[in-house]
Amino acid sequence: MPTYTAPTRDTRFIVNEMLDLASYGDLPGFENATADMIDTVINEAGKFCAEVLHPLNQVGDREGCTRHADGSVTTPTGFKEAFAQYRESGWGTISQPETFGGQGMPHVLGFVVEEFMATSNQAFAMYPGLTTGAISAITAKGSDEQKEMYLPKMISGEWTGTMNLTEPHCGTDLGMIRTKAEPQADGSYAITGTKIFISAGEHDMSENIIHLVLAKTPGAPDSSKGISLFIVPKFLPDADGNPGKRNGVMCGSIEEKMGIHGNSTCLMNYDGATGWMVGEENKGLAAMFIMMNAARLGVGIQGLAQAEISYQNAVTYALDRRQGRALTGPAEPQAQADPIFVHPDVRRMLMDAKAFTEGMRALALWGALQVDLTHKALTEEEREQADMILSLLTPVIKGYGTDKGYDVANNMQQVYGGHGYVAEWGMEQFVRDSRIAMIYEGTNGVQAMDLCGRKLAQKGGAAIQAFFKTVDDEIASAKEDETLKPIAEALDKALTDQKAATMWFMQHAMQNPNDLGAGAHHYMHIMGIVTLGLMWLRMAKVAAAKLAQGTDDAAFYEAKLTTARYYADRFIPDAGALRRKIESGAASMMALEADDFATAA
Amino acid sequence: MPTYTAPTRDTRFIVNEMLDLASYGDLPGFENATADMIDTVINEAGKFCAEVLHPLNQVGDREGCTRHADGSVTTPTGFKEAFAQYRESGWGTISQPETFGGQGMPHVLGFVVEEFMATSNQAFAMYPGLTTGAISAITAKGSDEQKEMYLPKMISGEWTGTMNLTEPHCGTDLGMIRTKAEPQADGSYAITGTKIFISAGEHDMSENIIHLVLAKTPGAPDSSKGISLFIVPKFLPDADGNPGKRNGVMCGSIEEKMGIHGNSTCLMNYDGATGWMVGEENKGLAAMFIMMNAARLGVGIQGLAQAEISYQNAVTYALDRRQGRALTGPAEPQAQADPIFVHPDVRRMLMDAKAFTEGMRALALWGALQVDLTHKALTEEEREQADMILSLLTPVIKGYGTDKGYDVANNMQQVYGGHGYVAEWGMEQFVRDSRIAMIYEGTNGVQAMDLCGRKLAQKGGAAIQAFFKTVDDEIASAKEDETLKPIAEALDKALTDQKAATMWFMQHAMQNPNDLGAGAHHYMHIMGIVTLGLMWLRMAKVAAAKLAQGTDDAAFYEAKLTTARYYADRFIPDAGALRRKIESGAASMMALEADDFATAA
Repeated sequence: MPTYTAPTRDTRFIVNEMLDLASYGDLPGFENATADMIDTVINEAGKFCAEVLHPLNQVGDREGCTRHADGSVTTPTGFKEAFAQYRESGWGTISQPETFGGQGMPHVLGFVVEEFMATSNQAFAMYPGLTTGAISAITAKGSDEQKEMYLPKMISGEWTGTMNLTEPHCGTDLGMIRTKAEPQADGSYAITGTKIFISAGEHDMSENIIHLVLAKTPGAPDSSKGISLFIVPKFLPDADGNPGKRNGVMCGSIEEKMGIHGNSTCLMNYDGATGWMVGEENKGLAAMFIMMNAARLGVGIQGLAQAEISYQNAVTYALDRRQGRALTGPAEPQAQADPIFVHPDVRRMLMDAKAFTEGMRALALWGALQVDLTHKALTEEEREQADMILSLLTPVIKGYGTDKGYDVANNMQQVYGGHGYVAEWGMEQFVRDSRIAMIYEGTNGVQAMDLCGRKLAQKGGAAIQAFFKTVDDEIASAKEDETLKPIAEALDKALTDQKAATMWFMQHAMQNPNDLGAGAHHYMHIMGIVTLGLMWLRMAKVAAAKLAQGTDDAAFYEAKLTTARYYADRFIPDAGALRRKIESGAASMMALEADDFATAA
Repeated sequence: MPTYTAPTRDTRFIVNEMLDLASYGDLPGFENATADMIDTVINEAGKFCAEVLHPLNQVGDREGCTRHADGSVTTPTGFKEAFAQYRESGWGTISQPETFGGQGMPHVLGFVVEEFMATSNQAFAMYPGLTTGAISAITAKGSDEQKEMYLPKMISGEWTGTMNLTEPHCGTDLGMIRTKAEPQADGSYAITGTKIFISAGEHDMSENIIHLVLAKTPGAPDSSKGISLFIVPKFLPDADGNPGKRNGVMCGSIEEKMGIHGNSTCLMNYDGATGWMVGEENKGLAAMFIMMNAARLGVGIQGLAQAEISYQNAVTYALDRRQGRALTGPAEPQAQADPIFVHPDVRRMLMDAKAFTEGMRALALWGALQVDLTHKALTEEEREQADMILSLLTPVIKGYGTDKGYDVANNMQQVYGGHGYVAEWGMEQFVRDSRIAMIYEGTNGVQAMDLCGRKLAQKGGAAIQAFFKTVDDEIASAKEDETLKPIAEALDKALTDQKAATMWFMQHAMQNPNDLGAGAHHYMHIMGIVTLGLMWLRMAKVAAAKLAQGTDDAAFYEAKLTTARYYADRFIPDAGALRRKIESGAASMMALEADDFATAA
């Protein structure tokens, strides 16, 4: 049976030392995030996730969700009770606005809780995760009445939320959706259509489910400029705001899928269901993107999360399992064999996991800080700067974070040898669960095009230039220090590759857009490498300073420096190869015709 | 439902044109492999696999195997009947010696059949696959009596075989095995112990199962120098060689695992079972390695196989699924959207799959030719040369072939977006099934150490030097040709990286063996890249020559040239990054202590 312990030490390091959250005390809500409060959130959330959610992770995988003839869905044993605890403890309220019952604390802390939940039980975490996405859309685009009606209960966890975008014939290309919204005399709409892959679409954990549904009003343009967003509650709120009449939306079936069995992935049938428009007609895409961006960050955290849980268990196994001898001679001659921890190839996989998870945690929480700053920074300029960085980081956190998180989960499974393939050890579940993160909320190919096709060009390239400047400044301030120099120089190389690839895109994409498309995925990875490198340089700086000051926790900071060097040694070199691939362009990639892909004749 | 069509065109190209099997007509057995016979094998094996085995692939995954209270095991619906057809058609006999009922044809053709079987239904193909491994051990090390008793029935498929190595506490480190072999008065041994992860350990498809079991005789050295190999039949052959008394070996349970559910992976209990030693006492490891090397090549082919089946289906899906528009403007303006085949990121994944599967097929069949040449080449020198190349290629075919095969299966799943995660489309099964190939018959980390720790050093480096010369010669003979030059130059770069990495190992491994271990996995990948590059250069040469001659199948040969260029553009650059990683050494990888891997405190 796998185990889970929340990475409390590492989280405190990032929140308190690397991000130095205390230094933002003048921002609204940050004053509540005192050192004590931060500690309490980290420790108590860690405890809740380890003690309540993690024991249900294998249960969820084995039992899955059951749909009954009446369309109702039963979640796995213990999920309902755990969700009640989640609600009662107020874990969903941390970074939500106080106006609607939230605690108004920084998103940084909300992300910490999200990580711990997704690590201990991804399938469970998706129920509140989707709710968070729905909340963000209503917060940004809902009317005052809608906010008052839905937000308090969704924030408290009494009600949960969903995102209904995909239809059988369309996922990425939302302009093609067919779900119809017919205006009714009372200002509501009658929603009719079929949505698929709806996570948490139906379940037994909350008294109501608030579906946010993309649909088309009559005569709407036949493109993504013709979609509108609707609130469609499972139970229509009555005059007192309590769940009333059952609405015309039903779960038609549950998907049988590779993993996240504990989450009910539903096909939803809307049959003249009553809905209310959120925001303006035909502007649903913008509202959807607010919800989607929140969800993308959450999915990126899932990449980190499944890497973390599989890493923790692989470390334990590598220290316990004995097989062969160290190449440098027996490490424990009195035992029949050494722990496999001594073998470099095992250590390579563990160090890869360590360098990724700690770097990615730093990136995710730095991203969360940008979310806070976009809303709360004191000047317009700071808010804009944070918004630019966040918009660049979002596809990287989602795309690179989940690609690499999946790699790590696979490597950690590999540490177990044959036992990794067997269900009882739980490692194969982490691989199956983490696989979805590369797909949903926009496949990683879509993330790559979002980054390269939209984000690089935004504001005439100002965002990416601001990012380059951030990295350049960090490198410049580190090069004089002997300890930091090799890390800074390695990062400089990767940054040079990213700049060259960016320039190459600028020179080629106008003439042949496929040159951009052909390199987009590689570019997203270069930027992932540079961004994690930036995090490692920052963490190394903090560690070096702490060691210079003197600390009784020196081993922790020494390990940070070693891991930063490992990152420089083993992650950075890929940037050069990715750049060469980008610079080879689309010619050989796009030359073949459909028939050329057949191997039989 | 996924579909399968055997890659007959591509296989003919490799066998007839690239390998030019006809030119080996003076070797024993090769004279039977006429052009007609080659065509018949390719076409008929392809048909059998597509029509009989492939329809059972999803069935096997869903039903799995069932163990009954008496220890017997039922295979999935249809498996038994399909195996009877396999046996009756003689598919297992192709490259087995005529003395024992085989057809004595080249292993190249045997590998073709193995590939088609593993592609259409990996779980099924493992039953005869393990039998092939067992046959090779008996052929090499068995007594004449053992050969006569077991080989004809195992070759015909009346009986199947297994390999019993792993025990609960030991897999890689076979010196630790505890299974005991007590000598009996009649020359047999009483075998007692527990073996785990025994593929095809118990089933209902053949009338007898011949277990090849590693065990220790009393007083044997406490290391891998103290293990012996035994034949332990499920039913003891009677005086007429027919299955007689039930032996003391039973399936204790079936593993619940990530994939290959159609194969019964058994825990086997030996309780004083009667066995007979194969070869000499305490020399079991050498006998085991004969069986293991055959199995490793078979597993490498599984990497190719799952890449191929997922690739075929992803191509179909990419041409069918419509989503978005080509970056260069609508490809099919009359339709609501273009097929996703137009998107560069989809094409990138398909081209990666194409370049890998076609290159890997060439490599596997070139490897098979070396198997033939080690046995049948006319001079001792040629036999030794082939043996050297084969011993180098084996860990690369297994390790690189399955690492990359898994990557491809994952990318092909990615082409399907959300539908790839859902069971009904079948793509997630290919991912789950292919995952095991990186683990069994020696994890890919073990393959890497076999390559770097043993094979590079063998005969004072003569093998790797011979390999370098082969690649150098191929490059030299291509550089004058304008079409081939860019491919040859790219390969030259990767070869330079491999040579440099080899040199780096020579300079560092003696002083610090961990420097070798830390780079071994990367080195295996460099060599995979170079080896597939060699195959692509050879295929490009054949294609260029054919186009120069004139052919009515020009599109096929043009596609080969384009794919070779794609390989140069998108596979070769990784060699440089891998070299840089190797040259960073073990320092940052091995510096941390066990406690440094904890993230909580």
